[in-house]
Amino acid sequence: MHLKAPEHQVAGHIAKDGKPGPLVDDKGRFFKPLQGDSRGEIEVKFYESFSSNTEVPAHIRRYFPVYHGTQAVESSDGAAMIVLENLLSKYSKPSVMDVKMGSRTWYPEASEEYIQKCLRKDARSTTVSSGFRISGFEVYDHKELSFWKPDRKLLNGIKVDGVRLALRKFVSSNTLSDTSSKPDSAFASSVYGGSNGILTQLLELKTWFENQTFYHFNSCSILIIYENESIQDGDARAQVKLVDFAHVHDGNGVIDHNFLGGLCSFINFVRDILQSSDDQSTQD
Amino acid sequence: MHLKAPEHQVAGHIAKDGKPGPLVDDKGRFFKPLQGDSRGEIEVKFYESFSSNTEVPAHIRRYFPVYHGTQAVESSDGAAMIVLENLLSKYSKPSVMDVKMGSRTWYPEASEEYIQKCLRKDARSTTVSSGFRISGFEVYDHKELSFWKPDRKLLNGIKVDGVRLALRKFVSSNTLSDTSSKPDSAFASSVYGGSNGILTQLLELKTWFENQTFYHFNSCSILIIYENESIQDGDARAQVKLVDFAHVHDGNGVIDHNFLGGLCSFINFVRDILQSSDDQSTQD
Repeated sequence: MHLKAPEHQVAGHIAKDGKPGPLVDDKGRFFKPLQGDSRGEIEVKFYESFSSNTEVPAHIRRYFPVYHGTQAVESSDGAAMIVLENLLSKYSKPSVMDVKMGSRTWYPEASEEYIQKCLRKDARSTTVSSGFRISGFEVYDHKELSFWKPDRKLLNGIKVDGVRLALRKFVSSNTLSDTSSKPDSAFASSVYGGSNGILTQLLELKTWFENQTFYHFNSCSILIIYENESIQDGDARAQVKLVDFAHVHDGNGVIDHNFLGGLCSFINFVRDILQSSDDQSTQD
Repeated sequence: MHLKAPEHQVAGHIAKDGKPGPLVDDKGRFFKPLQGDSRGEIEVKFYESFSSNTEVPAHIRRYFPVYHGTQAVESSDGAAMIVLENLLSKYSKPSVMDVKMGSRTWYPEASEEYIQKCLRKDARSTTVSSGFRISGFEVYDHKELSFWKPDRKLLNGIKVDGVRLALRKFVSSNTLSDTSSKPDSAFASSVYGGSNGILTQLLELKTWFENQTFYHFNSCSILIIYENESIQDGDARAQVKLVDFAHVHDGNGVIDHNFLGGLCSFINFVRDILQSSDDQSTQD
């Protein structure tokens, strides 16, 4: 089995200090190292529960990575890994954004230390103000013919206006590293709009979250993906996926109001960009 | 002007330690003392803004008390008061519930001391777990022919199961103080259900909250009211009203995801009761 580090990881843990990072194979699988302090255990428990939960409708299941069990990976010193679908294996030039959902990333069952750490990070970022924060993104720059990935420290400091700008840059065709030019939002309607676009998918997820009381997706992210190879022809292959379930807890009959509130807020940001790019085309 | 203390106040400030409490007159007006530490100022600012905001649709405006300005009230030593519509003046035997919305009652602009106080209270109550907490309620007991109001300390300690029970008791006809008997939810369909019922009104509010970015209703409550005099004939005169705007802040173009998430959760609790009382009637 030939394994290598994934090319387009925009957030989450990487190989560091002797700890293994995530790996991908050439058969479309993604290997995620099991995290310590019960996080790995919780994530496996979630995937086991979710993949066998017959009450999750098929049209919702497609927003989650396919789960292939766990495996000890020899090339990483036998580290235990969760084997998942590689969400990017069929993309050639993907633009990817990781959006951590919710107006808080902590939860009552967590340790006091963890709660305090989250509270600080939530207040510094747009988590408290906007109900989500952008954890990372990578965009294909059609002028430079290369990928552009903002520094994580830069992203950590952005406020609501920075979020708006990032969501525009993510679907723009002009040079992205150039801070003086206004992002043109050229791909807004093909990526965010349309019947297969991001907004439609987010709205479908929202309907499910208004009713589902199985899981509380604490500290979970939404990935947004599209293909740049075909975007000029309007074929965005836009996808929304939920990832990172190391803090998922039982819903106990209550909906995940924290995730849902953030999702509704995120939907409004995306809708704003679509509406303003509509206004622009009308003016042109 | 003849003023007296309101009969059916279920939560909020009362006359204490020489500070004036709220008053009502016989012309359907409610006098609310302006609170200190900028809270009174914020509430007045909200009512002034809201009552002149032409972008608030009429079908949403009816969920807010009518605002009549401010006034120095002589009988309360000239204390400055906000003059509002008395929401209960046309009810003879009202059942009333106060539900404080949101999975947090604090907000980033508040003082560290206030935030810490809120965090503790939010975690102890169902605010964090359920996205709202019941601050108080008073129900008319059709067996005892009198009002029943649970102790505020008792309410503070309730968890998710206690919320479910309270929402059932609120629409039941059997003796309420008797903890051994199961609430019969006799009025569930007339109060919570139907085209004029609580659920329909909550859903209308939800649609507005999915889009409105004017206000963030921190620490705001939803009042639920119905009339017991006519309830036996199925005429509930059920009403949802928003109250307590001493912590409202500008939305800055972001929806109030905190209120909205809690509202969606509350809607689910109400819907659960309606569905289970439907199931019961089918079995009968």
